[in-house]
Amino acid sequence: MRYEEFTIEGRNAVIEAFRSGKTIDKLFILDGCQDGPIRSITREAKKQDTIINYVSKERLDQLSETGKHQGVIAYAAAYEYAEVEDILALAKEKGEAPFIILLDNILDPHNLGAIIRTANLAGAHGVIIPKRRAVGLTATVAKTSAGALNYTPVAKVTNLSSTIEDLKKEGLWFVCADMSGEVMYHLDLKGPIGLVIGSEGEGVSRLVKEKCDFLASVPMKGNIDSLNASVAAGVLAYEIVRQKLQ
Amino acid sequence: MRYEEFTIEGRNAVIEAFRSGKTIDKLFILDGCQDGPIRSITREAKKQDTIINYVSKERLDQLSETGKHQGVIAYAAAYEYAEVEDILALAKEKGEAPFIILLDNILDPHNLGAIIRTANLAGAHGVIIPKRRAVGLTATVAKTSAGALNYTPVAKVTNLSSTIEDLKKEGLWFVCADMSGEVMYHLDLKGPIGLVIGSEGEGVSRLVKEKCDFLASVPMKGNIDSLNASVAAGVLAYEIVRQKLQ
Repeated sequence: MRYEEFTIEGRNAVIEAFRSGKTIDKLFILDGCQDGPIRSITREAKKQDTIINYVSKERLDQLSETGKHQGVIAYAAAYEYAEVEDILALAKEKGEAPFIILLDNILDPHNLGAIIRTANLAGAHGVIIPKRRAVGLTATVAKTSAGALNYTPVAKVTNLSSTIEDLKKEGLWFVCADMSGEVMYHLDLKGPIGLVIGSEGEGVSRLVKEKCDFLASVPMKGNIDSLNASVAAGVLAYEIVRQKLQ
Repeated sequence: MRYEEFTIEGRNAVIEAFRSGKTIDKLFILDGCQDGPIRSITREAKKQDTIINYVSKERLDQLSETGKHQGVIAYAAAYEYAEVEDILALAKEKGEAPFIILLDNILDPHNLGAIIRTANLAGAHGVIIPKRRAVGLTATVAKTSAGALNYTPVAKVTNLSSTIEDLKKEGLWFVCADMSGEVMYHLDLKGPIGLVIGSEGEGVSRLVKEKCDFLASVPMKGNIDSLNASVAAGVLAYEIVRQKLQ
């Protein structure tokens, strides 16, 4: 678990970081910017004795990693990865059957951020990503997660297949997003579940797929191959939500 | 969707084309030309992975259509917009009830591209976007649509509210994504339908929302405010698919 300084960029992401109680070390705000969201941010910053620097647009552009700072950049401590046990503990604490989203080699930080955001809103207890060949918790991921990274634990594991094996012992069933699978509406997705989403180009790898109990497909009527990975994750996660609500 | 190539000549015109997000496929620059505007152009070109060819004055004169190239000629691609009538005609041709996705001021090209991709796979007959305050069909949109832009017609309209009025006369019902709405599973979303998705920050604007027949919400269990716009569009579009399949 590394610790490093980290930037959070964009108004929603910074406000959420403050509200969730993250320690913001430094704040850079576009000089002269006085609108509502910026005033909320400076209010939070003053409450927490955060140093505020009013800087030029050029300086912000220079500091920005995402190119989309919206006039505000915060320097915070790094996002810490959780452990798989933390995710199970969160489910237990809420008295709910575990619901975990596992990502096999998602490379696009926008997709990872959007999926963490979806995980939070769909009531998943955490996200598991592999250590290798995947994007980690970067500034872009934090920003596109729209604050969800502050609430939804993300664990990083060496081997996704063996993590699935371990979680099966905890009673979880695993469903894998796959075009050759059964249409998702016909599967029973209630109960303790792990949803496995593959990489943008290649889907879920063979070794991981073989560990899954079901393959689930999203019905496709169109001319092209596949949904965007974060949209596919959203559609499948919400089919799980729908079945759980029934 | 039709695709055609055209040339843009002269320094200002080419710089503007880059800045407006137009797809520039190829760039011809006078060999040895190194002044400020040309450097701005090559910088933009590198950002967008445009192919740059350094050529002689004779070659530029030959390529030029206007005779006033000022040392630079760009080859641009243009995705042509469809008409709303084309979308209705496509539904009719397929013998299906029209299913249209309307976007109120989506600003992020990745979201627009992902939504066109979803529209294609969910069997929507087209996407409607407003002329103002929204991203158009740029290179990034084309790329993130993963080819869907070649199949799914996208129409651009002056006024989304009056387009909704017109389409109601064709028998369409309109459902608007809104957090205050009825949970989507409890609405009847079968039949001819327009799904309205709002901008990333502000949701659907009041005037457009008032024209809609229903407000539909995606159930939210988490700590943050909202799903990514393209994920929300995907989840709602697939609830429509689910109901149509029943």
